[in-house]
Amino acid sequence: MKRKKIIGVMGPGGGATESDLANAEEIGKLIAKNGWILLNGGRKSGVMDAVSKGAKLNGGLTIGILPSDNLEGVSEFIDIPIVTGIGSARNNINILSSDIVVACGIGMGTLSEISLAIKADKKVILINNNNESKIFLNNLSWKKIGIAESPSEVAKLIKNYFD
Amino acid sequence: MKRKKIIGVMGPGGGATESDLANAEEIGKLIAKNGWILLNGGRKSGVMDAVSKGAKLNGGLTIGILPSDNLEGVSEFIDIPIVTGIGSARNNINILSSDIVVACGIGMGTLSEISLAIKADKKVILINNNNESKIFLNNLSWKKIGIAESPSEVAKLIKNYFD
Amino acid sequence: MKRKKIIGVMGPGGGATESDLANAEEIGKLIAKNGWILLNGGRKSGVMDAVSKGAKLNGGLTIGILPSDNLEGVSEFIDIPIVTGIGSARNNINILSSDIVVACGIGMGTLSEISLAIKADKKVILINNNNESKIFLNNLSWKKIGIAESPSEVAKLIKNYFD
Amino acid sequence: MKRKKIIGVMGPGGGATESDLANAEEIGKLIAKNGWILLNGGRKSGVMDAVSKGAKLNGGLTIGILPSDNLEGVSEFIDIPIVTGIGSARNNINILSSDIVVACGIGMGTLSEISLAIKADKKVILINNNNESKIFLNNLSWKKIGIAESPSEVAKLIKNYFD
Repeated sequence: MKRKKIIGVMGPGGGATESDLANAEEIGKLIAKNGWILLNGGRKSGVMDAVSKGAKLNGGLTIGILPSDNLEGVSEFIDIPIVTGIGSARNNINILSSDIVVACGIGMGTLSEISLAIKADKKVILINNNNESKIFLNNLSWKKIGIAESPSEVAKLIKNYFD
Repeated sequence: MKRKKIIGVMGPGGGATESDLANAEEIGKLIAKNGWILLNGGRKSGVMDAVSKGAKLNGGLTIGILPSDNLEGVSEFIDIPIVTGIGSARNNINILSSDIVVACGIGMGTLSEISLAIKADKKVILINNNNESKIFLNNLSWKKIGIAESPSEVAKLIKNYFD
Repeated sequence: MKRKKIIGVMGPGGGATESDLANAEEIGKLIAKNGWILLNGGRKSGVMDAVSKGAKLNGGLTIGILPSDNLEGVSEFIDIPIVTGIGSARNNINILSSDIVVACGIGMGTLSEISLAIKADKKVILINNNNESKIFLNNLSWKKIGIAESPSEVAKLIKNYFD
Repeated sequence: MKRKKIIGVMGPGGGATESDLANAEEIGKLIAKNGWILLNGGRKSGVMDAVSKGAKLNGGLTIGILPSDNLEGVSEFIDIPIVTGIGSARNNINILSSDIVVACGIGMGTLSEISLAIKADKKVILINNNNESKIFLNNLSWKKIGIAESPSEVAKLIKNYFD
């Protein structure tokens, strides 16, 4: 049996920019259209909510790995909430459960996920307008990080990785 | 949007009896037939594998919460493996993520899940031939535990809880 | 360098009986007197607080593995609070970090810790007045569980294990 | 009862530079001399081992939060190994359990810890020769990060925070 690929999309909650949100929704849509499963942090906030919306409204399946120990604050666009009760320690579960990790925008939670992803030897794709973070992370990382300028480039990079 | 209910089925891996395995497969089938989502410990072993098989072969969706930090040892009947990397600490995630917890058979891991489920105030249903465990747990618990004698009784109890 | 042994003492919080509390305080004292380190769930409640008090007032070192993500509710008798933020999933850390696990009294949290301890192949000692739990657990366990009738018997069993 | 302050020192394992190791050992010494408790990742590698050595050889108390589920690979300079069994998810426990977080050197694990520390609103002090990381993190963070040029500056910053 062949499992569908799981794409983890990470990004800021309250700190997400308009551009992060627009990118996230479009990435969610492309994930759904390509038949991949979306995984994210599950909350009704920022990039998590936007990417879930994009995937869900386009027929995708959405998994949310929640930090809290109950369903409060879950995005309405999450099909399967995983209630971890382990707070930010769940960031590592987000990473380990994703075949590919996309970071859409940047914030401290997202930065922890990018670092954990590289440490866990996951493929990472960055999409955001923060040039500093791209340069800094690429210099620090021992492996090439994918840099995308648009949601469609994110999807193209993902496809390349799977080929 | 109405989310589908998630039924967590816990039970022994290597220590599962023939009767545990037969019950598990049938419970998985009934979960699928009722349109619920199956969640379990995800490994290719004992009750986890049997219940996943029962659900998957009957068109159900199966979530596996793995203790390990990679996909090794995952059941082939799991659609969505959540790779936690937190070992037996993931037992608490199994519980928190389930709307109802079914314990099919008994072992030390399963016993920890029953205890954590009662502690987290989850509805718990036991199905197994160990009379001692039924009596002991019902006496110790401050709330009524469901006792089922067959997979169809498990399904009936679940439906009752949801009504 | 030889590390001091760590004795984990588990037991109910709010549900602890008078006898559990008296036993816990005496066990804490004996742990301190023997030069062992005490580890427990860290909260200012029930067995956790009593055993920490017994150890601390007798010159012992006390480690508390807290479920919460801050210091609220920590026992004043804990020297080193480990703030896990992972809720009841921390029960498995309690177990893995203890050289020997003592269960003083019984409740759902304690039962999960006993099960996880046996699963992790730790030496377990029970002290409480619940005969059912002793019989049930000894029957279910594939290895002998120590049964103590008094705090001094607990200390004697611990010493035997270390010899 | 007044608890001793816990200083968490994070830093690379295998990727630590000579200067990271020298700084770490000196920081460990200063932590011990000031009567603080040292907490770190616990492994016999890089900054973890060096800072533990510095503290231990100067009479300090050392806590190691291990990622693994057993004692294999623990630094010999750790007094109290906390065996979490939760892999890199333990990075968040390192942070939550520390009154102040010092990052000595930089790597992906360390970067995840810095991010988690800022997210958890902990005071963070950086000491390393990577200018990029100082600038990048200070720009990204919504709060001032302490920058130290030497171990004695680290100790001075810690004292300032406690005053």
